[in-house]
Amino acid sequence: MPTVFDVTTWTHSTNPSITCYTDIGALINDIIARIKQDQPNQASKPGAVIYIPPGDYPLKTRVTVDISYLTIKGSGHGFTSSSIRYNTADTSDWHEVWPGGSRIKVENTDGRSEAFLVSRTGDPRLSSVVFKEFCLDGVGFSPHQNSYRNGKFGIKVDTANDAFRIEGMGFVYLEHAVMVRDADALNISGNFMAECGSCIELVGSGQASKVTDNLIGAGYVGFSVFAEQHEGLLLAGNNIFPRGRSSVHFKNVNRSSITANRLHAFYPGMIDFEGVNKENLISGNHFRRDVEPWAPMQSYGNGKDDLYGLIHLRGDNNLVSTNLFAFNVAAGSVSPSGATPVIIRVESGDANHISNNRAVSNVAATRVLLSSTSTATKVLDSATASEFRADTQNHTFRATP
Amino acid sequence: MPTVFDVTTWTHSTNPSITCYTDIGALINDIIARIKQDQPNQASKPGAVIYIPPGDYPLKTRVTVDISYLTIKGSGHGFTSSSIRYNTADTSDWHEVWPGGSRIKVENTDGRSEAFLVSRTGDPRLSSVVFKEFCLDGVGFSPHQNSYRNGKFGIKVDTANDAFRIEGMGFVYLEHAVMVRDADALNISGNFMAECGSCIELVGSGQASKVTDNLIGAGYVGFSVFAEQHEGLLLAGNNIFPRGRSSVHFKNVNRSSITANRLHAFYPGMIDFEGVNKENLISGNHFRRDVEPWAPMQSYGNGKDDLYGLIHLRGDNNLVSTNLFAFNVAAGSVSPSGATPVIIRVESGDANHISNNRAVSNVAATRVLLSSTSTATKVLDSATASEFRADTQNHTFRATP
Amino acid sequence: MPTVFDVTTWTHSTNPSITCYTDIGALINDIIARIKQDQPNQASKPGAVIYIPPGDYPLKTRVTVDISYLTIKGSGHGFTSSSIRYNTADTSDWHEVWPGGSRIKVENTDGRSEAFLVSRTGDPRLSSVVFKEFCLDGVGFSPHQNSYRNGKFGIKVDTANDAFRIEGMGFVYLEHAVMVRDADALNISGNFMAECGSCIELVGSGQASKVTDNLIGAGYVGFSVFAEQHEGLLLAGNNIFPRGRSSVHFKNVNRSSITANRLHAFYPGMIDFEGVNKENLISGNHFRRDVEPWAPMQSYGNGKDDLYGLIHLRGDNNLVSTNLFAFNVAAGSVSPSGATPVIIRVESGDANHISNNRAVSNVAATRVLLSSTSTATKVLDSATASEFRADTQNHTFRATP
Repeated sequence: MPTVFDVTTWTHSTNPSITCYTDIGALINDIIARIKQDQPNQASKPGAVIYIPPGDYPLKTRVTVDISYLTIKGSGHGFTSSSIRYNTADTSDWHEVWPGGSRIKVENTDGRSEAFLVSRTGDPRLSSVVFKEFCLDGVGFSPHQNSYRNGKFGIKVDTANDAFRIEGMGFVYLEHAVMVRDADALNISGNFMAECGSCIELVGSGQASKVTDNLIGAGYVGFSVFAEQHEGLLLAGNNIFPRGRSSVHFKNVNRSSITANRLHAFYPGMIDFEGVNKENLISGNHFRRDVEPWAPMQSYGNGKDDLYGLIHLRGDNNLVSTNLFAFNVAAGSVSPSGATPVIIRVESGDANHISNNRAVSNVAATRVLLSSTSTATKVLDSATASEFRADTQNHTFRATP
Repeated sequence: MPTVFDVTTWTHSTNPSITCYTDIGALINDIIARIKQDQPNQASKPGAVIYIPPGDYPLKTRVTVDISYLTIKGSGHGFTSSSIRYNTADTSDWHEVWPGGSRIKVENTDGRSEAFLVSRTGDPRLSSVVFKEFCLDGVGFSPHQNSYRNGKFGIKVDTANDAFRIEGMGFVYLEHAVMVRDADALNISGNFMAECGSCIELVGSGQASKVTDNLIGAGYVGFSVFAEQHEGLLLAGNNIFPRGRSSVHFKNVNRSSITANRLHAFYPGMIDFEGVNKENLISGNHFRRDVEPWAPMQSYGNGKDDLYGLIHLRGDNNLVSTNLFAFNVAAGSVSPSGATPVIIRVESGDANHISNNRAVSNVAATRVLLSSTSTATKVLDSATASEFRADTQNHTFRATP
Repeated sequence: MPTVFDVTTWTHSTNPSITCYTDIGALINDIIARIKQDQPNQASKPGAVIYIPPGDYPLKTRVTVDISYLTIKGSGHGFTSSSIRYNTADTSDWHEVWPGGSRIKVENTDGRSEAFLVSRTGDPRLSSVVFKEFCLDGVGFSPHQNSYRNGKFGIKVDTANDAFRIEGMGFVYLEHAVMVRDADALNISGNFMAECGSCIELVGSGQASKVTDNLIGAGYVGFSVFAEQHEGLLLAGNNIFPRGRSSVHFKNVNRSSITANRLHAFYPGMIDFEGVNKENLISGNHFRRDVEPWAPMQSYGNGKDDLYGLIHLRGDNNLVSTNLFAFNVAAGSVSPSGATPVIIRVESGDANHISNNRAVSNVAATRVLLSSTSTATKVLDSATASEFRADTQNHTFRATP
């Protein structure tokens, strides 16, 4: 009983005209049906591998994954910049114009928006589904190629799950690269996720998950990394580049870590906390904020101004320590005009702790700003007296000498 | 001369009734014998790959690896929670009940306790043995399924070794997932190791090794990560969840790092130092301690009380800095009853340095406690005056303002 | 149209006497020619995989990679120490004497110095070329086996590139393991790079790249990690062992991070900044400096003395924080004789920030030294008064209590 399937050699069970070159989605669904047929016994369902060799494969039909232990694997994340190409007048003499590797062109004609939907009801939760080393390419945005909109999802996991892995993948030109609901011990590592509306969206809830060692950069409309109601999420060792509306967005996330990452953005609100977020650690990160240098994108932004803070904290007992901020916005580009930009803004919450940070700025900047509703923040060695602003008396401040 | 072997297509050299479906251990031993026979020349022994496709494979006979450059590789770490299943009354309507992927059921009937024993005498040390992307499942514990005891080892490396890799593996329901003696430049990365008595045990001695980017959680009886007489071990980017008796246990370990990890535990002693441990770095970690929430495990513990400290230091010149601790134990559950829990306890040793830490607690807690035998500890910005306790005058203290 | 090629089964298109066992370089060039012939259409060039099973393969002819999306992949990084073997008098009873895995012996007889040259002119830049899990072995050095010289390059990328990956590889006995020019979003991760003159050299310029989770150790003649004119480079989670002339060398590098690494060296200048380097973050690292213990290498060094500093900073606004240094050089071995060794030396530049570091030393040592040309350095909690030396008045100092 085979458990390794190659999309290029699989014959569709009912309609041989469906191949990986006509509709890899329908073909993979057929393989999954066969795997289920081959593994009817509750006591032995080890799953399988579906292999996608390098090639260009259109996906017309959504794949639905509803078995545990399925690995879908290619040989090449295949990223290239579609954004540069779409913004180049003449590419007629280019060597190649599209992404490559094991490349699925997400072209749903089935009325669905997902290339891969992972979903199953009943018990147990789906476990150990793996996506590895292939390319999901949304091909184009609409109404224009710089909109980051097309409604397409690369991978959407819609029911609770355990021990999933998304590794070594490439994602490009999808409105949503990866959205995972209710994750437990999820691992997203070693991926190349760029030029997507949003890259990683961890929705619903989640725990004990890991986003590590990725290269990530969303569009101005979306999130590079979004997490909601997660506990114990570890974001470490990522290089997150522009131009997401934020680099990391937490919504009611508790006891999670953002450590040892490099973050680069063209807008304020690089780490953006929404709702109430408690006891999170932000340490050992490098933040670079400068101004959009590329003409095709200069008309876009995230709608936030420079008083918002590179870090915008809402919540209690968070620790922000040992980060380096490098702020570089020409005085004339600061918004609102004439404002003093803010590096760390404690917008709300109790007992946040800001210590041992260093911020470099080309203009006068408020290193730490405490809003009037924040309480009991401690700010130690993170700003000189003149770099600090508190709109409340309820705080502790030790100036950087 | 083939160097890639698939366990599902290999015919045993002397007894064709032995297959991967009757005893994958005996079969792999037969393949290794063939590799050795094919590579008799000292000057050209490149090794081989043994591939395990997704499937359920019983292992009755221990595998002995005594050649360098052998890769044993599957396609799926296959973790699912056996603990949840064993503690569920009726699983008759479950989709599946066992782990999957490339799953070896460790069922030794040969009187041995290891699935894989790696061992060779003579020179040089074994080099570059690789275990990758398969599942080692101990199937059950005894005398009951919550005991974490069955005597089984997933991988035991028993002689000095260099440049080994254990990557992308799954381990479940083994008393000892991975034990490695005398490691040099070992890499344990990207694994899923959970519901095992102990997950990683680095015994004997070792140097320049790396445990990075893993999801790890041992049982209450054992160690999530144990290291003995190591030098220059780097533990980084791991998400270590309950319920090991410790998250990281060092015994006479020097100049090693525990950085950028997320640690979660249900007991005190999350980082536990035994013997004399010198010049180690503990920084950028998130520690969460709360109380066992799951009924089947609530009768167990690690025998330590809340005075032991979440970090229990023994040794000299260690640096503990820029960690966030979130302690959450209801007052009535604190042990000993009425005690003030300790976050960082310097139990013994000279010149330890505790700086820039932040601890949140739902009850009054001693952030740093210096025992009477500790000497010359410096505690800076890690506790307010009332949060600090020194049972010795031989220390330096700068209170968090 | 196949896109997966196995070097052991490929027949050379014009000269069947060329095989992977006579010249894997010429054979791979022939496969690449075929891939290009098969993919003439600008709109569909997904690339391919070239697979190298475990084995010993001589490379006589340089491979030239000039297509995007090519993955060259083996099954085994195959590292063993050639240095130990070459320095062992009698290895006649050794089990094996050479590296293994998917091992390419770099033996160019074509007058070239590179095993793999990656280069293409025109647009776009090459994208997503991947080197994965094989061994590049330079076989020997000259004029003697401890010279680290043979002029050989493992991988040389000579034109601008995007989204490349070098993962899981082994490199040994090459003068230059990996040199990449003008990298964008390069990922070097999970490699074993040791006993090479230099391991990683990022030349020209670069941005948004990542060197993570590697085991690295160069020779005394070269660099473990060198980067030039990079922006936003993230070096995290690496275990960098001796004996490179430096562990990390930055030349005019800005806004990059060296975080959560373990560094071990036998010479001063472990992190060495050349030129002007701005706004870099060095945090959460462990530094161990001791004396060469191995007789065959004791006659070598990097020519720097102990006043040079374990960290030698040149540039502005860098943050050095929360590192642990363990200095161990017998008084009689300190150079210049009788000198007081330096841990962090700010050699030049403005507004560097040194905070919350801890250094342990077996001899009296200057923890932080500010040169006479440095300006406005702040040194906080990184040295006691007696451990600090400033050759300029232009600084701020808060002594470790």
